[in-house]
Amino acid sequence: MSPPVLFWVGYVPCLCSGLLCLLAVSFWSARWHGGFSWDGSALQFNWHPVLMVAGLVVLYGNAVVLFRVPFTWRQKKLTWKLVHGSLMLLALLLSVLGLCAVFDNHRSSNIPDMYSLHSWVGICTVIMFAFQWLLGLAGFLLPCSPPRFRSNLKPVHVWMGKAILILSLTSCISGINEQLFFTLTTQDGKPYNSLPAEAKFANSLGLLIVAFVLVVFGILSNDDWQRPETHHESAPVSMDENSIVFRFSTSIPRVHV
Amino acid sequence: MSPPVLFWVGYVPCLCSGLLCLLAVSFWSARWHGGFSWDGSALQFNWHPVLMVAGLVVLYGNAVVLFRVPFTWRQKKLTWKLVHGSLMLLALLLSVLGLCAVFDNHRSSNIPDMYSLHSWVGICTVIMFAFQWLLGLAGFLLPCSPPRFRSNLKPVHVWMGKAILILSLTSCISGINEQLFFTLTTQDGKPYNSLPAEAKFANSLGLLIVAFVLVVFGILSNDDWQRPETHHESAPVSMDENSIVFRFSTSIPRVHV
Repeated sequence: MSPPVLFWVGYVPCLCSGLLCLLAVSFWSARWHGGFSWDGSALQFNWHPVLMVAGLVVLYGNAVVLFRVPFTWRQKKLTWKLVHGSLMLLALLLSVLGLCAVFDNHRSSNIPDMYSLHSWVGICTVIMFAFQWLLGLAGFLLPCSPPRFRSNLKPVHVWMGKAILILSLTSCISGINEQLFFTLTTQDGKPYNSLPAEAKFANSLGLLIVAFVLVVFGILSNDDWQRPETHHESAPVSMDENSIVFRFSTSIPRVHV
Repeated sequence: MSPPVLFWVGYVPCLCSGLLCLLAVSFWSARWHGGFSWDGSALQFNWHPVLMVAGLVVLYGNAVVLFRVPFTWRQKKLTWKLVHGSLMLLALLLSVLGLCAVFDNHRSSNIPDMYSLHSWVGICTVIMFAFQWLLGLAGFLLPCSPPRFRSNLKPVHVWMGKAILILSLTSCISGINEQLFFTLTTQDGKPYNSLPAEAKFANSLGLLIVAFVLVVFGILSNDDWQRPETHHESAPVSMDENSIVFRFSTSIPRVHV
């Protein structure tokens, strides 16, 4: 298979698993926890998993791999930087809204905030994400940004981008696990350790989120799918898509294993 | 700073935070849970977090970055492949022993196995690790391995290596969170939500494990620290260390950002 075809073999599962994650986390809250509201009650808490999975995982993961989509290479990089930055801002806003949902619910129900390891890792993730977004705006979108700052920032931006996705996954899995221990031991139904239908469903949702994140990392780890270099960041790439891939794939030194 | 000096600036925190993780997880079990034994009791369970952090995180993370240590580049790659494979085997054995600790304890105490999301992700991690080790042995150490299989396996091996570390972190954080909810709500002491000393300590241990894994990813993400290519995999690299770094760092195409 040629590299662009191979890319879509990886990208279609990324889109599909992301969509499935969104549907599954919404179904979980709607089917087993009474749906959604914004009134401080447990129904407001239900927005928390949905917004965090939507913002920190699905939208974030798709924004991360945006520059790998081959048809974007023919267009100005600045356009796609703006799309990338806008998607990331939306992802950040959804995450902050997801935090508001849980803080409001805790205040209404007199539940202490920020004591579990899940909450510590989760808040670090969102703070790191906000910091990354501001730094990305300053370094890659503001025209006055010095080229030296920009080139030094690039590897840090790439590393922090991956770190945030790793922490998002960690926060989601520990959060789903915590939520199941809370709701399946304090309510009347079957306990978590008897694996009732909700436990099986939410555990599977967890594995689906894991699969989505690993597919994103799979796409990121393939150097052939990196946007080819251009000397002028905003210049359109005028070469044929396949020739770009060929040129790029032969310019990377191969480590003999 | 020159690349080798910069490498040690990243590698020393990796070694130190890994050692601190080991000390902290052992102290947690010893100080708040009565220490260790191998008799099916809760004292046997205490081996579980220690062995998983030791095997799946600290030893695994150090084995992953082994090829990035500059002094190994002067020596035969085969030697360091054998060291890498041996460290990974030890890490795998420690992880399997960590699973035995919890399964034995569950059997003695009539606690069901494998119901939580933590356990589902954890078992997937260890199975993936075992599969990766066997595939690595077949592809990179057996002399009869076909070169085509070897070169196709390399990117999969690199991606799976990162995936296993991400899943290890996810399993550890969800496991520590779960353990704190169990022990700090069912025992007489202060509950988890009042953040007693044990909760603060174990939450900090979780953040330390996060920091270790992110430092490992930081080292992996720097292309300048990759072992330089050689045409004969077992041939010693005869160049000066600095000249290797210079040659390699200029051979990678820079993407203009």
